[in-house]
Amino acid sequence: MDNLQLIKNLAIKNEKKIVMIVIDGLGGAPSYEKKFNTELEVANIPNLDNLARESLCGLAIPVDYGITPGSGPAHLALFGYDPVKYLIGRGVLEVLGLGMQMTKNDVAFRGNFATIDENGVITDRRAGRIPTQKTVELCNLLSEKIKKINDTEILLKPGKGHRFAGIFRGEELSDSITENDPHKEGNKPHKILPIDPEDKHALHTSKIVEEFISQATELLKPYKPANYILLRGFSKYPDIPRMQEVYKFTPVAIAVYPMYKGLAQIVGMEVVDGCENIYDEINKLKELYSKPYDFYYVHIKDTDVLGEDGNFDAKVKKLEEIDKLIPEILSLNPDLLIITGDHSTPSVVKGHSWHPVPVAIYSKDIPTVKNNVNRFTEEEFSRGILGTIYSTKILPLAMAYTMKLDKYGA
Amino acid sequence: MDNLQLIKNLAIKNEKKIVMIVIDGLGGAPSYEKKFNTELEVANIPNLDNLARESLCGLAIPVDYGITPGSGPAHLALFGYDPVKYLIGRGVLEVLGLGMQMTKNDVAFRGNFATIDENGVITDRRAGRIPTQKTVELCNLLSEKIKKINDTEILLKPGKGHRFAGIFRGEELSDSITENDPHKEGNKPHKILPIDPEDKHALHTSKIVEEFISQATELLKPYKPANYILLRGFSKYPDIPRMQEVYKFTPVAIAVYPMYKGLAQIVGMEVVDGCENIYDEINKLKELYSKPYDFYYVHIKDTDVLGEDGNFDAKVKKLEEIDKLIPEILSLNPDLLIITGDHSTPSVVKGHSWHPVPVAIYSKDIPTVKNNVNRFTEEEFSRGILGTIYSTKILPLAMAYTMKLDKYGA
Repeated sequence: MDNLQLIKNLAIKNEKKIVMIVIDGLGGAPSYEKKFNTELEVANIPNLDNLARESLCGLAIPVDYGITPGSGPAHLALFGYDPVKYLIGRGVLEVLGLGMQMTKNDVAFRGNFATIDENGVITDRRAGRIPTQKTVELCNLLSEKIKKINDTEILLKPGKGHRFAGIFRGEELSDSITENDPHKEGNKPHKILPIDPEDKHALHTSKIVEEFISQATELLKPYKPANYILLRGFSKYPDIPRMQEVYKFTPVAIAVYPMYKGLAQIVGMEVVDGCENIYDEINKLKELYSKPYDFYYVHIKDTDVLGEDGNFDAKVKKLEEIDKLIPEILSLNPDLLIITGDHSTPSVVKGHSWHPVPVAIYSKDIPTVKNNVNRFTEEEFSRGILGTIYSTKILPLAMAYTMKLDKYGA
Repeated sequence: MDNLQLIKNLAIKNEKKIVMIVIDGLGGAPSYEKKFNTELEVANIPNLDNLARESLCGLAIPVDYGITPGSGPAHLALFGYDPVKYLIGRGVLEVLGLGMQMTKNDVAFRGNFATIDENGVITDRRAGRIPTQKTVELCNLLSEKIKKINDTEILLKPGKGHRFAGIFRGEELSDSITENDPHKEGNKPHKILPIDPEDKHALHTSKIVEEFISQATELLKPYKPANYILLRGFSKYPDIPRMQEVYKFTPVAIAVYPMYKGLAQIVGMEVVDGCENIYDEINKLKELYSKPYDFYYVHIKDTDVLGEDGNFDAKVKKLEEIDKLIPEILSLNPDLLIITGDHSTPSVVKGHSWHPVPVAIYSKDIPTVKNNVNRFTEEEFSRGILGTIYSTKILPLAMAYTMKLDKYGA
């Protein structure tokens, strides 16, 4: 599945512009209540339907058949990276999602406030699900009192409920260390240890993390049930070749949520700030279209949230809202436009799913009057000329149609 | 993509005969001037249409989505070899294309006559595009005067214009050496060096090549603008398992052009000489059909040339000409017939392209009354029962339908 090196050898820089609109959780699944229709089948989306009729259409599989992807792997696949080979650590995704900036040497992690009893046994891994406001207070306390362990800086950021995330920032840190979370109540927390006892950087890091936990435990004593911290998902900034090197793109990302900005940053995109909603995003796309970028990634979040809520009707409405923006995107006359999702989030599943995602590749240079597709729906796209493809293949196809790939072999 | 070892373990020798007709550059793309039809859609090809209705049809991807293959990788894929794993060097393809025979120890290369000034700077990489006749003369001169460097024989053959190709033939030669072509005018030629300075065979070879260039430069002094040679694409005969070993075939190749004969030879086929055109080829196929071969590769070149010329109408005519030969092929009553191309060469692209190639697998033993396909066209084949497959999968399918593959596992 991974032909990144091949693509890199063949990539050609030219002036043509590719716009990739990622409608998060785009794909749906048939709902019994809706007479076995999907969100896209119920939605009144004439602009997307028209576009589909003139596009190369198909279904895209983010990771593999039957595999439900998280946002990280799903986006990496859309950006052309084998999502099994290139994994972004949980800690990294969490800190990116909270809007923290990472550097190459950082070790990121996810944390819970938890309850520990006088015998050192974890009695509640979620500290009685303390409210977010309490977590904000406690993170502030810890941040204020523990700025550094030796030369290693500690940065914390509260999440929702009992959750927080953080970064160890220093020299010679390693993410090859174990977690203290016993994953079951009634157990003592584990010691943080280097995975390989001979690994000096990991040993060094484990000692720093242990010291941090020890100091935090001291400070949290008065705050039962939130009198302990469980840390997991230790991970460094991933070593992923940048889009500039692989595709020779000058790429830019337009997104509202920090996690998607972070993902874009990991693959080398310039990230635009200041967008609060879809309308801001489309305006930003218009503003930047005359600038010397050649790959525009636009992330639309709301469809995923509504799918996760299981709110079929609201997801339909959101799709209809997005549909009204399609003419504005087309008015830019992009050399090539991709409309797809990172994964499916069917309302009936109330979460991400493994269902293939509709993908439409439109270019004014591709004559496609004969097309088996009449509507922008999962079932019609299954008969599209692209067939069912891995999401990693979308970008190579887009490059081919914009003449950005040289011939392979003589 | 590479299941060669699996196929090899399962391959069974039997009497059934597979005929693979490769129509070079078969696939097309919609032309605006032709009301968005492709060459196949415009062509009047009733025999191919009839065949399609009774065949397993689909689209084949030679290398990968979006990748435009050269003839080498495209053919290797048709012969079932992973075209990314098994690469045939540029020099090898060039000497094969010029009809030279290679042995296992040879190092092949491509060359240009070029112009060098008194300061040793390349002022024209193509020697003012000297005519072919001049290249013939100069190759003769060099061949006559430099037969050997030490024990290494040198064989040259003129190509078109300023181009030529050649072979270093001797013991302990390596193709792991750099090129002298600076790839830009205004630079001095590079020294030929071993890629790994510790590699003794490469060091030995680089010295021989340097000495050849030096002697050639001396001989070419009076022939400005063709007073220098640039060499590149050093490559040895590839180490590819033969079809006899992988498939247990007794294979034979029928082709007009040397490059395709060379490609067939590389994978172990017996190569038939003496064909000048399609009619010769079909006659040869008929003549050999009673002989004890079980895999017949027939290469039809002209469609590719006309596609590269951008001559839509001529490509259509050529397809119609080929269509008239289909009954003759069917009259042999082959156990299995594959009709496909190595890659697409749409007239609108004027070159090889990444577009999937129609593939039809016909056998009198396969009942195919229910078929979504009515015509031998790209769009109809996209709905064929095979779907879109990698070209490497065609041969295993053909083997399955001719009972040439044993069960895998118990």
